[in-house]
Amino acid sequence: MTLLDFLDYASVFIFALTGALVASRAQLDIVGFAFLASLTAVGGGTVRDVVLDRNPVFWIAEPTYIGVAVVAAVLVFFTAHIFESRLKVLTWLDACALSVAVPAGTGVALLFNHHPAVALLMGVATGCLGGLMRDVVCNEVPLVLKQGELYVTAAFAGSGAALVAFQFLPAGMALLICAAVTFTLRAGSLIFGWSLPVYRSRPPRR
Amino acid sequence: MTLLDFLDYASVFIFALTGALVASRAQLDIVGFAFLASLTAVGGGTVRDVVLDRNPVFWIAEPTYIGVAVVAAVLVFFTAHIFESRLKVLTWLDACALSVAVPAGTGVALLFNHHPAVALLMGVATGCLGGLMRDVVCNEVPLVLKQGELYVTAAFAGSGAALVAFQFLPAGMALLICAAVTFTLRAGSLIFGWSLPVYRSRPPRR
Amino acid sequence: MTLLDFLDYASVFIFALTGALVASRAQLDIVGFAFLASLTAVGGGTVRDVVLDRNPVFWIAEPTYIGVAVVAAVLVFFTAHIFESRLKVLTWLDACALSVAVPAGTGVALLFNHHPAVALLMGVATGCLGGLMRDVVCNEVPLVLKQGELYVTAAFAGSGAALVAFQFLPAGMALLICAAVTFTLRAGSLIFGWSLPVYRSRPPRR
Repeated sequence: MTLLDFLDYASVFIFALTGALVASRAQLDIVGFAFLASLTAVGGGTVRDVVLDRNPVFWIAEPTYIGVAVVAAVLVFFTAHIFESRLKVLTWLDACALSVAVPAGTGVALLFNHHPAVALLMGVATGCLGGLMRDVVCNEVPLVLKQGELYVTAAFAGSGAALVAFQFLPAGMALLICAAVTFTLRAGSLIFGWSLPVYRSRPPRR
Repeated sequence: MTLLDFLDYASVFIFALTGALVASRAQLDIVGFAFLASLTAVGGGTVRDVVLDRNPVFWIAEPTYIGVAVVAAVLVFFTAHIFESRLKVLTWLDACALSVAVPAGTGVALLFNHHPAVALLMGVATGCLGGLMRDVVCNEVPLVLKQGELYVTAAFAGSGAALVAFQFLPAGMALLICAAVTFTLRAGSLIFGWSLPVYRSRPPRR
Repeated sequence: MTLLDFLDYASVFIFALTGALVASRAQLDIVGFAFLASLTAVGGGTVRDVVLDRNPVFWIAEPTYIGVAVVAAVLVFFTAHIFESRLKVLTWLDACALSVAVPAGTGVALLFNHHPAVALLMGVATGCLGGLMRDVVCNEVPLVLKQGELYVTAAFAGSGAALVAFQFLPAGMALLICAAVTFTLRAGSLIFGWSLPVYRSRPPRR
């Protein structure tokens, strides 16, 4: 198993956990858990593969991914009540998933020799779109758009760090740096409230 | 016309009816009806074809599908007021559409010799995604996620039944069984309230 | 640069402006602006290219498109407060974007010798889907579905006009006519309230 495969598996598993947690908030049955877990888990990577015309799509080539997502769904179905605050668990799991999905997306794009700008975008898209689909389908406010938090920014910075690191370090190291940067920024935003200035309407200048 | 083509046509037509009914609830004009009908009608199958890299996408190869969806939209535009409860008609038409789209999705995946797990997922995706897009675009609570109803579960069971039946019976028979299982479960859920236990937060075990 | 390239660039730029304006209403930070601007800008064209199996997708082949979208996002981030009514600016920019995206979609489909019905649909899809994604992700009521306004209808008429004009005029002229028809109908709807009769539930006939 290559590092890229491992990142894909890890991101599928963790995103599936978040999808199942959202399913638990919507009080679905176990098949609903599996459906939402799978959608979240493979959503971002599917867009990546379809847009890059990587054939076949990763979970078609290797349906084990779906099995992994289903296991995550079952796990959550029987244990979610243990956690006091499911929203908090969800937010942190999502941060972990983001941090492995961004290097997975960036790595695949670089492996296929795409332009760095494309790799940057694929990192952000793979990281953000699965969770975005989950939130849109369940009519929750997308985590991506939460005001005053670093989310897309964390993905963007992580992917950018990977691009720079690729110039000087072995690929595996670069992907680890990517994951670390993404997680640090996202976690710092959740714990310490790190953020970029948001847009605020100001009085017109003239 | 093969059985698979017939299933595609039938699912396009019935899903288009449901899309147009949702358009009538949103009080759109006739072009809006056609747009929403087409989106619902070809949405699930398009995802299936793009993900399976089946080229060209079914309604590009045969634009008659779009014509069928438009006819359905016009039909609903001029007759929807006849029905006393459009929501009830919508729910039942959607059940029918689901029951033909699931075998259509499963069948195409098997025809292309995909792994059974992929075929299972394609059945569920083709069945559920068109209606999901319709509901997400119109900001309705997705039927897929209605609590305490069999929907994804019906699709899943139908697709699973097809996979088993394919081992022992001719393909056409297996697809019919798939449709029957899906419809029975969905209809049973609507009439008799059949359901799987849903997730409920319980007091922590420790 | 061909006319089709120009239309793609123009539609990317203007759609990016609308995406950034929606981001300003959601009070995101500058990376959020860039994300939403890019999603809106390339969403419709990506669906067009993926469905038509045009390889590679336009912004993968030429990542400058993303640069254009980012420039638009930065521009809006620093100037949006100048405008008194951002919603009004948004609506009109969206009308302009629609009017260049519809010929871009129709033109690409015709260039690839697709059936006129497919070209018609690609025009409508390219024009409407980017904005639809933007509105769905931000949980706004999609402009596409605003009751009593010509939107899909304008796209549809513009694309239809292009198909007719292609029979008699050079391609460039036909695309300009397409843009003009789309914009006239959309603008007329916004200014003069032009509309098609919408569906209204009437008392049952029997």
